[in-house]
Amino acid sequence: MNKSEAEDILIQVSKDSRLQEGYQGVRLIMREILRGETVPIHDISRATGIPVPVVSATRRELEKRKLLSRKGGAILTDTGIKLLNSIGIFDTEIPDFNCQYEISDTVTKLASQFDELTGQRPSPDYSLDQSHATSLTCFKRVMYFHQSDSIEGRDIAILGDDDLTSLAIVLFATRFGLKINSLTVFDIDERILNFIESVSFKLNFQIGLKKIDFIGEIPPCYKSTQDVFITDPPYTVEGLTRFISVGAEMLKERTNGLGFVSFSNLIPVENARLFRNIASMGLSPQEIIPSFNEYVGAQKHAGISRMGKFFSSGYLEPTNPTSRNLIYTNSKET
Amino acid sequence: MNKSEAEDILIQVSKDSRLQEGYQGVRLIMREILRGETVPIHDISRATGIPVPVVSATRRELEKRKLLSRKGGAILTDTGIKLLNSIGIFDTEIPDFNCQYEISDTVTKLASQFDELTGQRPSPDYSLDQSHATSLTCFKRVMYFHQSDSIEGRDIAILGDDDLTSLAIVLFATRFGLKINSLTVFDIDERILNFIESVSFKLNFQIGLKKIDFIGEIPPCYKSTQDVFITDPPYTVEGLTRFISVGAEMLKERTNGLGFVSFSNLIPVENARLFRNIASMGLSPQEIIPSFNEYVGAQKHAGISRMGKFFSSGYLEPTNPTSRNLIYTNSKET
Repeated sequence: MNKSEAEDILIQVSKDSRLQEGYQGVRLIMREILRGETVPIHDISRATGIPVPVVSATRRELEKRKLLSRKGGAILTDTGIKLLNSIGIFDTEIPDFNCQYEISDTVTKLASQFDELTGQRPSPDYSLDQSHATSLTCFKRVMYFHQSDSIEGRDIAILGDDDLTSLAIVLFATRFGLKINSLTVFDIDERILNFIESVSFKLNFQIGLKKIDFIGEIPPCYKSTQDVFITDPPYTVEGLTRFISVGAEMLKERTNGLGFVSFSNLIPVENARLFRNIASMGLSPQEIIPSFNEYVGAQKHAGISRMGKFFSSGYLEPTNPTSRNLIYTNSKET
Repeated sequence: MNKSEAEDILIQVSKDSRLQEGYQGVRLIMREILRGETVPIHDISRATGIPVPVVSATRRELEKRKLLSRKGGAILTDTGIKLLNSIGIFDTEIPDFNCQYEISDTVTKLASQFDELTGQRPSPDYSLDQSHATSLTCFKRVMYFHQSDSIEGRDIAILGDDDLTSLAIVLFATRFGLKINSLTVFDIDERILNFIESVSFKLNFQIGLKKIDFIGEIPPCYKSTQDVFITDPPYTVEGLTRFISVGAEMLKERTNGLGFVSFSNLIPVENARLFRNIASMGLSPQEIIPSFNEYVGAQKHAGISRMGKFFSSGYLEPTNPTSRNLIYTNSKET
């Protein structure tokens, strides 16, 4: 098999499995399997950033073509290995090059305390694209916010908080003696607001709680009031754009501010569209960290998402409100 | 002093020192000084991502207002500390939360070998915004490229290579038995092409060498030929946009590809403009790593820059060629 034939096969596999990352995506998946040998599908999804159902479809197409077989996980056949060789990929031993965050024991303890406090939390409402970040993820977030000067003395807004990041912030700030100026949770889901209220009462910390639907224009009293917005929005480009736009509107004009957005992998063309939207609002992308957030349970995106940090530039152009059926994944699919 | 008065002072400091990051930037600088006590100006610049001359101007303005004094570095006065306290920042001990890459001994050895081979390299031509990345940075880059599936079997283009990243790629690939399909360096500077040629001859690896000025339209024979483009372009938004656009045009349409861009910190409004340009071309920002690259010697940006990884989405809209005086920093300033 020559290089061009091998490429044709992988392009066809991507088409038949509707893998929108195309040739590059199939390469990534097969390379991951070559390196790891029998690899569970969720691990492939995590390592490649491609959603589980798509990895699964690709695996089926590779199986059909006898490039892959299943033996307690995915494993390449001899033909599969030869195909990779023909495009230049061999089974070589190279040290991984990944960036690792260290979590101190103090913070791990805070995460346990968080788990105890939140044992009775409301279960995720999938119609609102809710899914819970792990407690360690909540504290990674808080440490990242603090490292980015976004806790001390700040007016902080959380746009949608089924993850209960607000409570992690309170535990962290209390433990380390950080003074927050104000912390407000905006959510459409009353169960979450009530739960946060009850726990914050135990912690003796006042969190502002506002029931709001971000579909519509936000009340003027919420605009230009915050230093920091934090959100883990619905998964669609429209949902992400709308939540980020609301966050940007909430940032103070006088002193500007920062936004932190947790968002899952999008296919390149959609991700490019998202960043065009974000940059057109006048938000400046400062950092994007893949696989920063982990979620409880098995989801579409293999339970991981990215963290993005954005600065407001003082030239805000908010987007228009968007209709509900474009925002939430479930509404979109039905 | 109350919070609002303190904010007013910091806003005024940012105006008087032309710190375009505004209030947030002054806060970051003062916070860094509070944490580190007597901090050299280059360290402040690195930690905050704000260019050295601007940090320097801000320091002068803070000194004028007796918020800061200089005792072998910058140190806050009592008034300065009180001002920070009034906006909620205290001197608290919190573990740093930074992501660290591990560099193996094998790779450190390769970097020494690289240093020996490149001892006679041409010195930087500042009129072309050249400045040399450290040898370790070159290998960090190569490891990152490899981790991102961008070395094996790839057609790789480097757009401007005064850093000699091409030679680091060759050393790394040889050491670990990786097969590159092709490696081409495009540069306007003949000194660099000649130097790379002479070293690649010693290494017994053929690197394609093309003299080209990216100001104009690129020849059609260079379009859609590459899997990967790598660039560390001129510092202006126009320079960055032009080089990235050329890189995007070089990526194969049939199989798409990836781009790696090293770029220094821009003020938020300029950075937002850059990302609007990039996303409008159809490139998808996948990862942004602050302070990834380090450079030799003291420069405007404290010798660090970011690494960005971009996927092509298959919907390419290249930008128009840009005139020279908008691209290079020196031409722009004169």
